[in-house]
Amino acid sequence: MTASSDTNALAIAIVGVGKIARDQHIPALARDPRFQLAATASRSGGVQGVETFETLGALLAARPDIPAVSLCMPPVPRFAAAREAIAAGRHVMLEKPPGASLAEVFRLEALARQAGVTLFASWHSRAAAGVAPAREWLAGRRPKRIRIDWKEDVRKWHPGQAWIWEPGGLGVFDPGINALSILTEICPVPLHLTASTLTFPENRATPIAADLTFTDGDGLDATAGFDWRQEGGDIWQMEIDTDAGQLRLLDGGARLFIDGQETTLDDTGEYPTLYRQFGQLIAEGRSDVDAAPLIHVADAFMLGRHLRGDPFHD
Amino acid sequence: MTASSDTNALAIAIVGVGKIARDQHIPALARDPRFQLAATASRSGGVQGVETFETLGALLAARPDIPAVSLCMPPVPRFAAAREAIAAGRHVMLEKPPGASLAEVFRLEALARQAGVTLFASWHSRAAAGVAPAREWLAGRRPKRIRIDWKEDVRKWHPGQAWIWEPGGLGVFDPGINALSILTEICPVPLHLTASTLTFPENRATPIAADLTFTDGDGLDATAGFDWRQEGGDIWQMEIDTDAGQLRLLDGGARLFIDGQETTLDDTGEYPTLYRQFGQLIAEGRSDVDAAPLIHVADAFMLGRHLRGDPFHD
Repeated sequence: MTASSDTNALAIAIVGVGKIARDQHIPALARDPRFQLAATASRSGGVQGVETFETLGALLAARPDIPAVSLCMPPVPRFAAAREAIAAGRHVMLEKPPGASLAEVFRLEALARQAGVTLFASWHSRAAAGVAPAREWLAGRRPKRIRIDWKEDVRKWHPGQAWIWEPGGLGVFDPGINALSILTEICPVPLHLTASTLTFPENRATPIAADLTFTDGDGLDATAGFDWRQEGGDIWQMEIDTDAGQLRLLDGGARLFIDGQETTLDDTGEYPTLYRQFGQLIAEGRSDVDAAPLIHVADAFMLGRHLRGDPFHD
Repeated sequence: MTASSDTNALAIAIVGVGKIARDQHIPALARDPRFQLAATASRSGGVQGVETFETLGALLAARPDIPAVSLCMPPVPRFAAAREAIAAGRHVMLEKPPGASLAEVFRLEALARQAGVTLFASWHSRAAAGVAPAREWLAGRRPKRIRIDWKEDVRKWHPGQAWIWEPGGLGVFDPGINALSILTEICPVPLHLTASTLTFPENRATPIAADLTFTDGDGLDATAGFDWRQEGGDIWQMEIDTDAGQLRLLDGGARLFIDGQETTLDDTGEYPTLYRQFGQLIAEGRSDVDAAPLIHVADAFMLGRHLRGDPFHD
């Protein structure tokens, strides 16, 4: 992996070189002429050919020439890192969820505004190929029934990741918030949660399954089922019946069906799209911080009935 | 109890004539020349000498001359009532918490803005006599340590109120959010939650006790202990050590001590103050909807470690 040598490219650093950085961020940056991966901060190894620092603080001090950082760490340590980078005058891109708490997300938004830097709280599923066309199709239609199923095998997607089971790790809402990020992006009417049932493995602090009910206050029937105990194939789908036809998103938003007919989509990939958006936001001097998906998650915890389930062992 | 006959008074209706309406709202309105209690909507009896309707819908239809309503019902049914009143062009005052979910609070705020009416999401503890002076004293000082203890006997304060134990009823956060409403009002630096332990009686859906830790991101040590199992006297106190002296609020904010010396306070009462504020907001065409205390509560549920405690029986 070598960084782009385009001299007009914006130097960017990645903080936290774990699974998501290696699977998504680094390949996306390698193919993007707008950015040049100029450094990393990581305790678990860096990227070949790219300067690596032990800490974000060391990176910020040594490389004032790098104007942007992308934070690829779990939610709990993210606030301190984002705050440090913003205080050093850098533009910041965050993985979802944008924080371990809502209060810290609103605080980061205010800090970025005061510092005059771009903060991009990214929701990668919103960059799935079907999402923008779905939003366009739904605009002007009236949803009557929404059914979301987001079911995957946690052992396959989060092998040995202890932080997902600790407070702030969100449990099954780590994938479920992807569905909520799509829903809040495409649904033409605002929804709020009315009921939630969360199942916690008796040896874990976060839920392994969640059943949610939303309303628009006008009789719209919206439900979501998130489950990490799925075996035999992931299900990431959303079905919306409207007053003028039915929309279905499959494969996490990558495939779109209108009235049963699959739509041809232009797929540039989620993370390449996110970095294009980050570049645009920096160029326009704007931020994009939408806490709506995390608000629904916090509401689901606050309004939830909590059930104890079987213990979970990796 | 008779309503004021001041012809310049603003007609107001109370929706939900329960304990809090009889204890606080109705006496406060009776003494306030700015308002005239013109009607109530209640299924459990009204107020002598005041027209009573079975439902808010019937009240709004029959009395277009009443420009303001005060909602004194539990949080879960509040959204639908507030929305109905706002849609009918009425100014609305809400008891705390302003909703069962955050999403519905943000939605109500938007609806009021669109309708051009005043929405006042009241936090009665912010109107306690010591709060405004505490805020003034803290401005410009730097808090170093904050300790909140909010402990009361649930059997004394919520006898037989089943809704507090149901999802959305918030459990011990029903009083605890009063402490958080004071904290967010007076603390000169923004805080966010970093840890939370919630104890749920094994037969109830909401917590009976909570221990919270907050930070400002700069080493401020802030903790709060909420407990509904208190016997032998309520404790509602907050102690803030700063770089220039110590502040203590006792009795839910009614008494203020600076460096151990009690301050003389001008006490007009919480609810009379709230109605004065509601009248001012209406006169100025403004709303006041601060979700910050409820954001901390939602964060405490989302970030919480959930413990099972002994069953609770009324």
